Amino acid sequence: MHLPPHLLKLITALKGLPGVGEKTAERFAFQILKWPKERLQTLASTLSAVPDELRHCSVCGCLIGNTPCGLCDLSQRDPTQLAIVASDKDVFVLDGTGTFRGIYHVLGGLLSPIDGKGTEGLRLEQLRRRIAELGVKEVILALDSTLDGDATALFLKRELESLDVTLSRLAFGLPLGSSFDYVDAGTLSRALSGRSRA
Amino acid sequence: MHLPPHLLKLITALKGLPGVGEKTAERFAFQILKWPKERLQTLASTLSAVPDELRHCSVCGCLIGNTPCGLCDLSQRDPTQLAIVASDKDVFVLDGTGTFRGIYHVLGGLLSPIDGKGTEGLRLEQLRRRIAELGVKEVILALDSTLDGDATALFLKRELESLDVTLSRLAFGLPLGSSFDYVDAGTLSRALSGRSRA
Repeated sequence: MHLPPHLLKLITALKGLPGVGEKTAERFAFQILKWPKERLQTLASTLSAVPDELRHCSVCGCLIGNTPCGLCDLSQRDPTQLAIVASDKDVFVLDGTGTFRGIYHVLGGLLSPIDGKGTEGLRLEQLRRRIAELGVKEVILALDSTLDGDATALFLKRELESLDVTLSRLAFGLPLGSSFDYVDAGTLSRALSGRSRA
Repeated sequence: MHLPPHLLKLITALKGLPGVGEKTAERFAFQILKWPKERLQTLASTLSAVPDELRHCSVCGCLIGNTPCGLCDLSQRDPTQLAIVASDKDVFVLDGTGTFRGIYHVLGGLLSPIDGKGTEGLRLEQLRRRIAELGVKEVILALDSTLDGDATALFLKRELESLDVTLSRLAFGLPLGSSFDYVDAGTLSRALSGRSRA
């Protein structure tokens, strides 16, 4: 006996979620079967409405609702500081800290020398134009501390060094609450070289 | 800055999936934002159609599509053997082995002495009626080898012992491909007491 065709269709659709394979999709599907009709409809209609309800700001690339982009509102934000982030999700993480009041530029990805991914798809033209137009003084590279993040930071440094802006990158060091026992040598070494007066 | 309301709605809806918390739901939601419109629509419409496309057979409780229940078709299945399983999902697992050609009865759960869950919601009336009407000769308890499974097996044994049927339970022993090094003492002890001639 095989699974009913509609259940297979549901499982296939759920397998598109990140990290969800056959077994997890099956588990999700059988749970969904137990949901009341209203709950099913809520998820279905929320999914359908995504293209209408959520869009990316054409200027900074941030994810916004059906309203003008609050992160591009220069009466609220300081245009002299611009943070470059890889993805729309990173904006929420960084802005959630409440310590940055500048503006953002979503790059749309990272260079990946290993995977052979170059600058295609990255919003570089808009970046240069915005830096020039907005009178940005400091560009903060808020990128992952991975090989791809490092490659992208190096690339952006070369791209932007001819412009009259200060370039900075997020600090590397011990994560808060971390114990020496669990910190790798690379992190420790960067924390040492970036030490500050106590 | 907060997440757009529609994104929050999507995250909340996704959190209903088993094992999916805030962080995973966020990861799912941001991935879903990248999906093309058609893919969104496919998942949305599949979810909406679940109540129309999938139902449980009123006789055996198995999950079926829009067709008569193939597992209750006595021209294809042997009604002298009836397997009692806890959930609709278990039917697919057991039937997928291809070694059982009898009929099923989905109980709809297990007793749980620890959680104080009794027989409420279990399809016991239908079970007794089916055993009497179909001329079942053997009832196979195809239940988990857990505390709840054991409690349910014991309960069913007492419930059904007055009927003229043979009661059996799935064998306990070494899982195929297992090494002695990784088998617990309880399993080994059951495998020993259930040994057969080599």
